[in-house]
Amino acid sequence: MFRKVCIVGCGLIGSSLARAIKKKNLAKKIVSSNRSKATNEKVIELKIVDESSSDIKKMAEGADLIIISTPLSSYKDVILKIKDCLNSETILTDVGSVKEKIMNLVEKNIPENISWIPSHPIAGTEESGPEAGFSNLFENRWCILTPNKKAKEKDINLLKKFWETIGSKVDIMEAKQHDYILSITSHIPHLIAYNIVNTSLNIQEEKESAIVKYSAGGLRDFTRIAASNPVMWRDIFIQNKNNTSNMIDKFINNLKDLKKAIENEDEEKLEKIFEKTKKIRKDIVAAGQDIEKPNFGRK
Amino acid sequence: MFRKVCIVGCGLIGSSLARAIKKKNLAKKIVSSNRSKATNEKVIELKIVDESSSDIKKMAEGADLIIISTPLSSYKDVILKIKDCLNSETILTDVGSVKEKIMNLVEKNIPENISWIPSHPIAGTEESGPEAGFSNLFENRWCILTPNKKAKEKDINLLKKFWETIGSKVDIMEAKQHDYILSITSHIPHLIAYNIVNTSLNIQEEKESAIVKYSAGGLRDFTRIAASNPVMWRDIFIQNKNNTSNMIDKFINNLKDLKKAIENEDEEKLEKIFEKTKKIRKDIVAAGQDIEKPNFGRK
Repeated sequence: MFRKVCIVGCGLIGSSLARAIKKKNLAKKIVSSNRSKATNEKVIELKIVDESSSDIKKMAEGADLIIISTPLSSYKDVILKIKDCLNSETILTDVGSVKEKIMNLVEKNIPENISWIPSHPIAGTEESGPEAGFSNLFENRWCILTPNKKAKEKDINLLKKFWETIGSKVDIMEAKQHDYILSITSHIPHLIAYNIVNTSLNIQEEKESAIVKYSAGGLRDFTRIAASNPVMWRDIFIQNKNNTSNMIDKFINNLKDLKKAIENEDEEKLEKIFEKTKKIRKDIVAAGQDIEKPNFGRK
Repeated sequence: MFRKVCIVGCGLIGSSLARAIKKKNLAKKIVSSNRSKATNEKVIELKIVDESSSDIKKMAEGADLIIISTPLSSYKDVILKIKDCLNSETILTDVGSVKEKIMNLVEKNIPENISWIPSHPIAGTEESGPEAGFSNLFENRWCILTPNKKAKEKDINLLKKFWETIGSKVDIMEAKQHDYILSITSHIPHLIAYNIVNTSLNIQEEKESAIVKYSAGGLRDFTRIAASNPVMWRDIFIQNKNNTSNMIDKFINNLKDLKKAIENEDEEKLEKIFEKTKKIRKDIVAAGQDIEKPNFGRK
């Protein structure tokens, strides 16, 4: 499918992509570029890329697919370094969780004839780093493309095919819409998880290890999400700050409403809300976006 | 261990107890009482109890262990019906998630010589009903006892042994302390999960099924918790309303703090908080309160 794929940043997502490309034999050559020497050595040792170096220009040279999979705050640095390696045959994509700001940032810095087609695979675990990746991470997961206006139709189709070949279902939408929807389905849930774990930590200092001990009552599920990559999530919230901020306000208003219902012992209202939220779980399992094993199969 | 165990309310927890008692052979006879005819028939069909009837007095008569496992709002009704069946040889317990209020309610309505020893197994799944139970639900989970002052020492020891035999680790504490700790480790996480799913539902009406489609980005984990039994949770929040209300305030204050850091693009502060929350996950896995499989082993 490609002559040379260059993955910039072999973390959980980047290394999973490398593995999937190898497994499906989608490139004659896969290379990666990482800032740290240890990571460049590790990906060679893991045999998930053919070559890896911190010399990003050398790695990007001649690649017909370049995938940026670094935290969002590194994009500017990456683009300034690789822009001279891009030519009319290059497809440039990424895997970032926020699109609108980086779309503009990258567009401003690359030649006109480049197909810049941001991707967002809705997939991941709470783990980080090249050893945490696995080739079937993208199977049965959605991947959203938000192509730049100047991206060539044939390149959009090829990149769509690429994601489908590694198991994803692909949707194409505007960056603005992407950032709004994802703030609800992903960014706010992560922020809330961080916040609840942080709130419990402030209390834990008083109550020693009681929080850890009795965490199976619900808190432990939040701690899993709140164990996700700190730099990656810091960047996501800042890049999507308007949506994040608006959603926080809606969330707080609803929470105050629930608080009032509890204080007033309004059984009817509480039950009605909790019945409604129960239903969406069934829809999600029916849509194949989760398994129906109770307790995530931990039983 | 017991002559006759009576389980009042064979839902997820009650039916799991019945199964565990049968499996470990801890009673000569197990009976249950449920309000609905269908449930009384179902538990007989599932062969998890020897007898079951809505006639709660008949079921409780002669039992040396009575376990109330109904929603908290049914306790008063249950106690008024069974109080005449209690005698000095009865151990009365429950499995409810809030203790202080029901401790007093029950104490006021039972004879002096009864060992009233509330239990709270920190275990469960998002499913409800007698078919959802399983015998090893309590294995390696904590169970907190908050014995009434008049409970006999030998009965406390026997009940402790009972929980240990079905796999639990037992802690004894004051009801007040229990309600405070559990509001952090269990009640608030559930309330937050309900609130985030409810917030996303209000938006979903605008955006059709996009929320379900892209839920794998984080939201789906909350929907699992928010699929828990609505009546049970409504009762928990109302019974523990002071702690719940205080914790909501703390939660909202912290969330506003995070919001401000995001709006100010305060990278350092955000990263510091997210690094801190990452650490507690390791403590929870190390304490055996969760598995370390990434993504709950869904990968």
